[in-house]
Parts: sequence; structure tokens; C-alpha cells
Amino acid sequence: MLIKQLAIIGTGLIGGSLASSLKKAQLVEHIVGYDQCTHNLDQALSQGIIDSNAKNIQQAVTHADVIVLATPLSTMQHILTEIYQAMQPHAVITDVGSSKALVIEQARKILGKRISQFIPTHPIAGKEHSGIAAASDHLFANQYIILTPLPETDPQAQQIIEKMWQGIGAKITQLDASHHDQVLAITSHLPHMLAYALVDYLSNMDESMEIFEYAAGGFADFTRIASSDPKMWHDICLANQQQLSQALHDFITRLEKINHAINKADSQALLDIFNNAKQQRDSFIDSRTHKKH
Amino acid sequence: MLIKQLAIIGTGLIGGSLASSLKKAQLVEHIVGYDQCTHNLDQALSQGIIDSNAKNIQQAVTHADVIVLATPLSTMQHILTEIYQAMQPHAVITDVGSSKALVIEQARKILGKRISQFIPTHPIAGKEHSGIAAASDHLFANQYIILTPLPETDPQAQQIIEKMWQGIGAKITQLDASHHDQVLAITSHLPHMLAYALVDYLSNMDESMEIFEYAAGGFADFTRIASSDPKMWHDICLANQQQLSQALHDFITRLEKINHAINKADSQALLDIFNNAKQQRDSFIDSRTHKKH
Repeated sequence: MLIKQLAIIGTGLIGGSLASSLKKAQLVEHIVGYDQCTHNLDQALSQGIIDSNAKNIQQAVTHADVIVLATPLSTMQHILTEIYQAMQPHAVITDVGSSKALVIEQARKILGKRISQFIPTHPIAGKEHSGIAAASDHLFANQYIILTPLPETDPQAQQIIEKMWQGIGAKITQLDASHHDQVLAITSHLPHMLAYALVDYLSNMDESMEIFEYAAGGFADFTRIASSDPKMWHDICLANQQQLSQALHDFITRLEKINHAINKADSQALLDIFNNAKQQRDSFIDSRTHKKH
Repeated sequence: MLIKQLAIIGTGLIGGSLASSLKKAQLVEHIVGYDQCTHNLDQALSQGIIDSNAKNIQQAVTHADVIVLATPLSTMQHILTEIYQAMQPHAVITDVGSSKALVIEQARKILGKRISQFIPTHPIAGKEHSGIAAASDHLFANQYIILTPLPETDPQAQQIIEKMWQGIGAKITQLDASHHDQVLAITSHLPHMLAYALVDYLSNMDESMEIFEYAAGGFADFTRIASSDPKMWHDICLANQQQLSQALHDFITRLEKINHAINKADSQALLDIFNNAKQQRDSFIDSRTHKKH
């Protein structure tokens, strides 16, 4: 088997789905889980997604060969400190956070020379629902896993993490951490801000129920991501503060350009923007459909 | 039958779906169609969605008892002028535009005393695809049709239009025209601007293909409406200029508030916005699901 003992800190949607997928693929001998939420942890154990549950983080990692951090970004610093005190010297640590630069900075300070064993990772997969109940053993199949290795990264440690993800059907790709944070700020973090802001805006109108009532079909799709976990997104906002703030600023500038064109009845400017967007979006969907077949 | 002869100007997605639904429900004796795009018109005739095709607008409406305008908003003024010159004095006219105040203003000028026979209507239904190929005979089933009657509106004329929509399974509701334009600016026109602006923004980045590649699943849903017909949305922007511009302005203010909270690391402000949005969006979906069962 690829891994003898694996510790998963955080048995929610991502941690639970990873454990469940690894069990199915028979890549790990023993999975020990820990979660602050005993409900998540108990359910993971009773469903056989993990083999044993730990009472605390130190207990979870003591005998682990690979340690996966699948908790909100704001908890990483504290958990890395706990891990460092109890881990085996050879253990490989990886995380699944949606923002990379900050956790790398924290890991470097806490892990010292063992930073070479820390493999920062971001699986591009998720749902608007969270928790173990939403977990599935095929969440990562055919999905991208972005690795953001460091100059110090140990190639052997990286290989174990790559094999772990590939073994459950995911595709590995690499990006520089700060480039990752910029790309994700634009493709994921910004759209979440737009969905949250839109629903918040509508709900503050005088006739919010009437407004929701008349919202057409597309509205449900468009606002789906506003049902995502608020605490998780709060953490992402603060972890990726600078890149997200820049993306929001740039996007507002573009919205103002559209508003200006509407006010001036500038037909050409509006048609240019809409035509370009439609063409890009259609070819994005075409290329996805093409790849699936 | 409810209607002896019906003229449909514009046999695209909405006009074609209406004709097709009315045929299925056997509510109309004869449907005559006209479309500037001969492809749409020929297909409507060969599929039996319309009974005959007209060479021009005047020919289409000469013997019609009910006339439906299902063309882009920018064409309404011209078409109403053509209709007025050829219509029977008793004919009822209705439209299906996504914005109401401007077309009412135009109709009042052109139709004079016959404004009482003009029933402004907006079916809340659509797809990101347009044209007769996307038409279906159940597009309006269980969907809202918003009527925005005028002080002058003839109750009998209104009743014919209501019965026509109810006969194909749609639900009638009424709003004041300017209130309609405000509600739609926020629930439909604004989200379309956000989707267009986001895709346009991404496609102008240096690494746009890479960015699209890493965009997670939710991105496809979130940007679906950016595949909508650019010309139609251009027309909506200009027809609902004032209300949409106000909605964009208000939304930008809210985005700036979020950006400010991110910059200040104001956890409470972010959590308040995200929690409120999640709660509102979840209960919106709950109420929709509840109604379907």
C-alpha cells in the first residue's frame, strides 16, 4: 500500500471525501481522523470512512506517515504548531486550503527545516454543502489538484502526495503559490463575493420575498454558491486578502465601465463586451464538453 | 377556440414556444408568423408551429384578432408603427419584452386611443439559447407571466391575454410597469451584467485559458447567463437604462463595502453579509422546492 498510516485533521466535506476515496482505492492501511466537531468525527467512524478517531490533534498524528490538514484556513497556524510537537520526523504534511501563500508563510515559521516535508495543495473540487454528510468517494475524480511546491520541497515527499491524489483519479498540476492565489481570487473567490453581495442586496430590498419570487430560473444557478459555508469564505477572504481585494477592485472598474456605457447609450461598447463574453464562455463550455467525451 | 387568428411577430425562442404551446393546447384556429430571419420563419412553418408565414408585418396582422410582439426591444417602435397601419380596429396587441416602461411610452404615442387594446406582458421564462431551435411547447408551464396593465387598459382585452397564458399552464401576476422594471433590473438584468463582466474580465487576463481551465464546477453555473444573446441584452440595457444603472450603482456600493471589510480584516462585517446571504438563499430554494411538491 502507498501509505501505512494517514491522519486526517478535519473530517468534513473535503477530508471525509479524501478518506472515503482512499479507502475505496485501497491506498492506505489505516486512517485516523480528528475533528473538533464530534458529530463529523463520529459519523466518519461509524461509516467506516476512517479506521479510528483521535481525542486530539497530537494523538492523531503521533504514528502518521502522512498528515492531511482539511480544516478552515484560520485554524492552520494553531494546528501546524500542534502537529510539529507530536509528528514523526519523517512524516509528510499536506493541506487542502483554497489560498496558499499565507499557509506557506505560517508553515515555514512553525516547521523550520521540516518545511521540505510540507506539500501545499489545493483540490479544485467542492460543493455548496459542507460537512461529512456531503462527502463522497468520487468528489475528486477527474478534478484538478493544484500543487504549489516550494524551493525547499523534498521530491520524494511531493511524489507521495501526487500518487495519493492520482490513485483516486485526480489530475495533478503545478503553480507558483502567489500565482495560484491570483488565479483563484479571480475564478473562485471573486464569484463567491458577487453571489453573496447579490443575495445580500436583494434581501435588503423592501419587497425581498416578491423579488425572490419573480427571479427567473437562472437566478437559482447564479446564486448557488451564496449557500456556501460563511465561516470558510470569511477565512478565505482574510487569507487571500491582497489578491482578492485587487480582483474586486479591477472588477468594480469593469462594472463601472458597463454602467458608463449604459448611461451614454454606447451600443458598440456594450455589444463588444457582451459578444466577447458570450464567445469566451461558449468556447469554455465547448472545451469542457469535448474533454468529457 | 379562444382566438380565431393570432399573429406572432418574431418566431424565435419566446414567439416560437408560445405558438407551439398554443397549438398543443388547441387555443388558436390559425397562427400566422413573421420573422425578419427567414430561417426562423421557415423552420416554424415546416415544424407546424405556425399555420402560415407572412412576407411582412402588415400582411401578418391584417386579419389577426390578437397580435403578439416577440422581437428585440429596439424593434418595438418600428413594428408598432407597421402594425397600426394594417391592424383590424378590434385587434388586441401584446408584447413579451423584459422591460416595460419604454415600450408603453412608445405604444401610447403610436396607438393613440387604441392603447386600451395594448396589454404589456413579460413572461419570466427563457434560456441562454435563442432562436426557434430552442423553442419548446412547455417553456411557460408553471412560469410567471407579469402583466403591467395601464389605467386605460380594456378589461376584455386583458382577459383574452390572461386566458391565453393560463391556457398553456402559466401563472398570471400583475405589477406596475415602473415597479416591474425596478424588480427585473435587480433580479435579472443586474445578474446578467455581472456574468458578462466576469467572463469579459477573465478573458482579458494574460493566461485566460489557464484561468478557465482551473475554474471550478460552480463557475459553469455562475456564468451560464453570459451565453445569452448579446443583441437582446444590449436592447434591455438601453430600454431599462435608468433602473439598471441605479441597480449597478447600488451593487457597486455593496461590493466596495465588502472590499473595505476584507482590507480592514473586519470579520464581523464579512460574517454578517455571508450569513445573511446564505440564510436568504437557502430559504429561497426551500420555498421553491416546497412549491414544486
